[in-house]
Amino acid sequence: MKNSFGQSITVTLFGESHSPYIGAVVDSFAPGVIVDEEVIRAALNKRRPRGAGETQRRESDEFRIVSGAVGGRTTGTPLCLLIPNTDVKSEDYESFSSLARPSHADFTAEAKYHGFQDKRGGGHFSGRLTAALVAVGAIARQMLGQKGVYLGTHVLSLGGVRDVKFTDAEREVKDIASMDFPVLSPVEDEMLSRVEEARKDGDSVGGVTETAIVGLEPGLGEPWFDSIESVLSHALFSIGGIKGVQFGAGFAFGEMNGSEANDAFYVDGGKIKTKTNNNGGINGGITNGMPIIFSCAVKPTPSISKEQDTVDYVKGENARMRISGRHDPAIIRRVCPVIDAVCALTIADMLAARYGTDYFCGAKK
Amino acid sequence: MKNSFGQSITVTLFGESHSPYIGAVVDSFAPGVIVDEEVIRAALNKRRPRGAGETQRRESDEFRIVSGAVGGRTTGTPLCLLIPNTDVKSEDYESFSSLARPSHADFTAEAKYHGFQDKRGGGHFSGRLTAALVAVGAIARQMLGQKGVYLGTHVLSLGGVRDVKFTDAEREVKDIASMDFPVLSPVEDEMLSRVEEARKDGDSVGGVTETAIVGLEPGLGEPWFDSIESVLSHALFSIGGIKGVQFGAGFAFGEMNGSEANDAFYVDGGKIKTKTNNNGGINGGITNGMPIIFSCAVKPTPSISKEQDTVDYVKGENARMRISGRHDPAIIRRVCPVIDAVCALTIADMLAARYGTDYFCGAKK
Amino acid sequence: MKNSFGQSITVTLFGESHSPYIGAVVDSFAPGVIVDEEVIRAALNKRRPRGAGETQRRESDEFRIVSGAVGGRTTGTPLCLLIPNTDVKSEDYESFSSLARPSHADFTAEAKYHGFQDKRGGGHFSGRLTAALVAVGAIARQMLGQKGVYLGTHVLSLGGVRDVKFTDAEREVKDIASMDFPVLSPVEDEMLSRVEEARKDGDSVGGVTETAIVGLEPGLGEPWFDSIESVLSHALFSIGGIKGVQFGAGFAFGEMNGSEANDAFYVDGGKIKTKTNNNGGINGGITNGMPIIFSCAVKPTPSISKEQDTVDYVKGENARMRISGRHDPAIIRRVCPVIDAVCALTIADMLAARYGTDYFCGAKK
Amino acid sequence: MKNSFGQSITVTLFGESHSPYIGAVVDSFAPGVIVDEEVIRAALNKRRPRGAGETQRRESDEFRIVSGAVGGRTTGTPLCLLIPNTDVKSEDYESFSSLARPSHADFTAEAKYHGFQDKRGGGHFSGRLTAALVAVGAIARQMLGQKGVYLGTHVLSLGGVRDVKFTDAEREVKDIASMDFPVLSPVEDEMLSRVEEARKDGDSVGGVTETAIVGLEPGLGEPWFDSIESVLSHALFSIGGIKGVQFGAGFAFGEMNGSEANDAFYVDGGKIKTKTNNNGGINGGITNGMPIIFSCAVKPTPSISKEQDTVDYVKGENARMRISGRHDPAIIRRVCPVIDAVCALTIADMLAARYGTDYFCGAKK
Repeated sequence: MKNSFGQSITVTLFGESHSPYIGAVVDSFAPGVIVDEEVIRAALNKRRPRGAGETQRRESDEFRIVSGAVGGRTTGTPLCLLIPNTDVKSEDYESFSSLARPSHADFTAEAKYHGFQDKRGGGHFSGRLTAALVAVGAIARQMLGQKGVYLGTHVLSLGGVRDVKFTDAEREVKDIASMDFPVLSPVEDEMLSRVEEARKDGDSVGGVTETAIVGLEPGLGEPWFDSIESVLSHALFSIGGIKGVQFGAGFAFGEMNGSEANDAFYVDGGKIKTKTNNNGGINGGITNGMPIIFSCAVKPTPSISKEQDTVDYVKGENARMRISGRHDPAIIRRVCPVIDAVCALTIADMLAARYGTDYFCGAKK
Repeated sequence: MKNSFGQSITVTLFGESHSPYIGAVVDSFAPGVIVDEEVIRAALNKRRPRGAGETQRRESDEFRIVSGAVGGRTTGTPLCLLIPNTDVKSEDYESFSSLARPSHADFTAEAKYHGFQDKRGGGHFSGRLTAALVAVGAIARQMLGQKGVYLGTHVLSLGGVRDVKFTDAEREVKDIASMDFPVLSPVEDEMLSRVEEARKDGDSVGGVTETAIVGLEPGLGEPWFDSIESVLSHALFSIGGIKGVQFGAGFAFGEMNGSEANDAFYVDGGKIKTKTNNNGGINGGITNGMPIIFSCAVKPTPSISKEQDTVDYVKGENARMRISGRHDPAIIRRVCPVIDAVCALTIADMLAARYGTDYFCGAKK
Repeated sequence: MKNSFGQSITVTLFGESHSPYIGAVVDSFAPGVIVDEEVIRAALNKRRPRGAGETQRRESDEFRIVSGAVGGRTTGTPLCLLIPNTDVKSEDYESFSSLARPSHADFTAEAKYHGFQDKRGGGHFSGRLTAALVAVGAIARQMLGQKGVYLGTHVLSLGGVRDVKFTDAEREVKDIASMDFPVLSPVEDEMLSRVEEARKDGDSVGGVTETAIVGLEPGLGEPWFDSIESVLSHALFSIGGIKGVQFGAGFAFGEMNGSEANDAFYVDGGKIKTKTNNNGGINGGITNGMPIIFSCAVKPTPSISKEQDTVDYVKGENARMRISGRHDPAIIRRVCPVIDAVCALTIADMLAARYGTDYFCGAKK
Repeated sequence: MKNSFGQSITVTLFGESHSPYIGAVVDSFAPGVIVDEEVIRAALNKRRPRGAGETQRRESDEFRIVSGAVGGRTTGTPLCLLIPNTDVKSEDYESFSSLARPSHADFTAEAKYHGFQDKRGGGHFSGRLTAALVAVGAIARQMLGQKGVYLGTHVLSLGGVRDVKFTDAEREVKDIASMDFPVLSPVEDEMLSRVEEARKDGDSVGGVTETAIVGLEPGLGEPWFDSIESVLSHALFSIGGIKGVQFGAGFAFGEMNGSEANDAFYVDGGKIKTKTNNNGGINGGITNGMPIIFSCAVKPTPSISKEQDTVDYVKGENARMRISGRHDPAIIRRVCPVIDAVCALTIADMLAARYGTDYFCGAKK
């Protein structure tokens, strides 16, 4: 299994940018889990491009659950969700032919698939596939909510413009849940200006996200090799553009002493907590009951309008290319719901393994 | 499987700090792979504490391969390697009882294992277990070398003292292979002074490592969810103290524009290369033939001599504790060979899946 | 993963008898594999009910490949195949309500899924799902053919009427490939009379199948725990109605001496063969180059028209029931192509693991 | 993973007939599980050769648990159990050299491992490895007992001499638990005479075992592809010599009508049961609460003293050979505890996946 993650709740992703459908199979949610199409639609809406400097591909995101659910509840058998690819303009992409778009997967796909890959619109590498992840992730997120586990992701920085970090994650993850452009401080306008500036330059910008997961009991995760960090990073590093993941203080640990880095324990109302949370809620790979906090580095969208040096990978010759078509100068806002989705699915999976496959089961029908 | 990684070449780790043995089972190397005990011993020596400010626990690291190899060659069946725990001083640890050492796994282990965990010396969470990883990793590294794949890790920063980054990785990974304290520029003395300073303060220091893997052909890795970044980070985040992993420019991408971040392709002597390597040798989760470059954040050793606030997790009361015993103020030098080991095993596994289980097989006997 | 099998080529099955679609995802065939829709259609036709005493449900079996293939070739990414459920008559099944059909999965599904299972037409347990297996299995079978590996299944016995066993499997598997009712000797009419007799009685009949796989080189399989017998039986025992699997002499070994059971080796034209094939082509879990021969026990269809004792599993009361609707008095003919499909997928998976993911790749495009 | 089975409780087997140790790693039992060395020793004793016509290799079976248990309880981390190979007489086997013992794995091992396999005493294929399975299986069996689940295997037939089948499995599995030669009727002497007869002829005999598992609630297992039959047969078919597995009526279904094959449900004291148990306690791959009943075909030991035709697989020439050394004319008695072990481990694994990793956890320490 390559296009899958999870042990007890396994997600398999399929589809290409221009195939008839993209979709996901979840094998399997517990029986009796609520499948609320409005909740799924809302999650998909947060991932959709919305004009201001984002791709103009209109994705209808009309999803359909074709197995594994009846009457608004899961059956406990594999749930397959399909999203049709409707607004497909193949012609935009045909000029790429055998020119490798820099920092895209064109050349590596050719090396791996020997020329048989679907080249239209990025094929199987397309960010389009994350729509299916977001849709099934929305179901997982609702499951977690019923167990008191909440999560959320905000744009911590974008092209150098910075948001503040989580300080009261329990409240903040709920605050950002309804935001289209999730930030903790009023930096949206400045960030959007930065995006617009890049767009005018035919360029793009990178950024950093920050995620919090709250409400997990201590004791989840494994020392080797399924630490919380391991399983989350595994799923996160599949999301196109994510090139770094750090938990808690992360790379800042490199310049800290142990005496400042260590999180002192204390008892608060009968519950064991830590005064600081430099470890991001994880000790020895296992949750300690504090919020799980991590951040992800998102590289600038590689599709830019400026002319670039490249090669024709079939002819084996140097070349110049200019990428036309519909592209986002900053995908980071749209990466946030994808991060939420893979986190929700990963955490739900770990809970199902720990507490049994019926843990998320609705009351007996 | 929790204590395992790899699909075609699966490594399972077992043991506790004070159990009779620690060890690893590899299921399975190809038949006919060279098992050179000197090479294994050399790798273990690089991981051993060496006086200057490092733990005084004397680990003999006498390993024994008890299955899966005959006459200096693997048989192709599971290879089990054992390392006895000889220099065990349980008494040092007994005072911990139910006081949770801050930023250690004592409290989370209690939550997960309900009090049945082996508490002596960190139990299953002990860095001691990495000796078995290093030993079997040395076999994998030799396998890779025979296919022209080399890798190495150096200390990029330690307590604020910085080494330079890889610039000519192909040469540099070979240069550092023989170093006990792997650095690319003459910063060893300054780094060791920084460690000594921390030791005198009863404190510890964090750092950052940088790793290069050279010689891989384009086309290795999967788009979803077994990207090169995913599988490497999964294994890396199990190593105690690693709290961040970034590939290529990593978190620096957050402040870059696409036009500076993109790696332009060009043809060099018939081979496709990139002018820069901000993507760390990976596009779309798949190798592009450039060196794979990543760095890891290593937190300061949580065991410090200063008195710390904590809790007694059985009584549920606040407490103060001072950790005595034998500890390293900086583990980062010793983390380098562990990173090399898990990388070698991970890459060997991916190659065996791609090219078949006999890819590393010696010539027919 | 529960609804999956295979390591390198993993098949996941989804759908219910009355869900909008059933389908399968294959993750992943090699790139460049031929996807011939005529071959798939032919395989599906062999599985379809055909009047004479078989279910009258008309399944159109119109399949659609919605990802992972372009221009008649696989891309190397997950292939999703969908089959719509068109001829669905829910009303036939509604009378079952909470009466457990004897030897069906109604009661066990209730116990497992707590009442949330899709009860219409057997739900996820429906034999209908095997259509998706047969469709993707047809692709695998064509892949194997290009490597000189062929397989086929015939009805060895049906309601006491017996066919002969394979004696020249290499030829016979090709002979039966084109038969709608695969038998090695002229027993079709007698078998069909036996079925018709059962149908008139409102009863059903069981049978035994025999399968041969020819053309495999020696050396495929694992001693523990992925012996050829293990992986084949794992997949076979998922097929509804299969309650026994035996390799070579199978249960007849119980009354044999070693001197008659052992298969003596000899050299034939430079190739090592065995004089007898009591071991069904497998020694120590590994192919020996002789045809793999096994047989499967198929229980009589549990859906019969006779009135039966049962329980109402919701009320917890004894009851009597008569199953109406459309059912086969003998499914064994239709089980043959399903056996062929899971064998083809299993063997293709083992070959891809052994020889690499590109083993079945077409020539470079 | 090839030498492993199980998802939540994974067993990995390693070692060769003449390697320093054989052993198993279990990843992982729940924390707090009782590890009773007397229980393990008793299970090993049932597997040991005992003079009368059985191999004269004296296996001391001195096991040692080297990780994952402290103070008679599991820790919840990987448990590694080692058994040293002490009574090793390599010389007996050296004459085999490159002559393939008929129906043994010599030739297939050569094909798979290209001559690098450990050829001494059957190497990794040796039945000796099952000692480690039996040892860790004994722990699993005790775990199951604490949940009211019991299992046992008897010799149903041996060289044509037949025992009766289970009729009151709940009682009978407890009766046979203490027997060295487990049978339900007084046929031991006749069976042993049959073995002695074979031994005198330099021959060996096959047989059939029957196993019952009682006390499982309805609802365990998966429709596709992890049916109870699938997972049990997968593990069973790894045991050397097992060539057939049938559940309930098994191959006898082939001659039955549905009306006699179907198991009618009825209510007995508020519990749903079936009047017959032709389905062996499994409907649709899922337990129905009745005893799980299956039988295994065990081929005659291939090591016989009679001279046999074979080949020299290195020279590629026909040859004659006579196997000397220490061998059992009937291994079936010794296969029974191995079947019990893999069943106990498999069922424990399925229960841990369904009810959570702590299901077998002892009370909090």
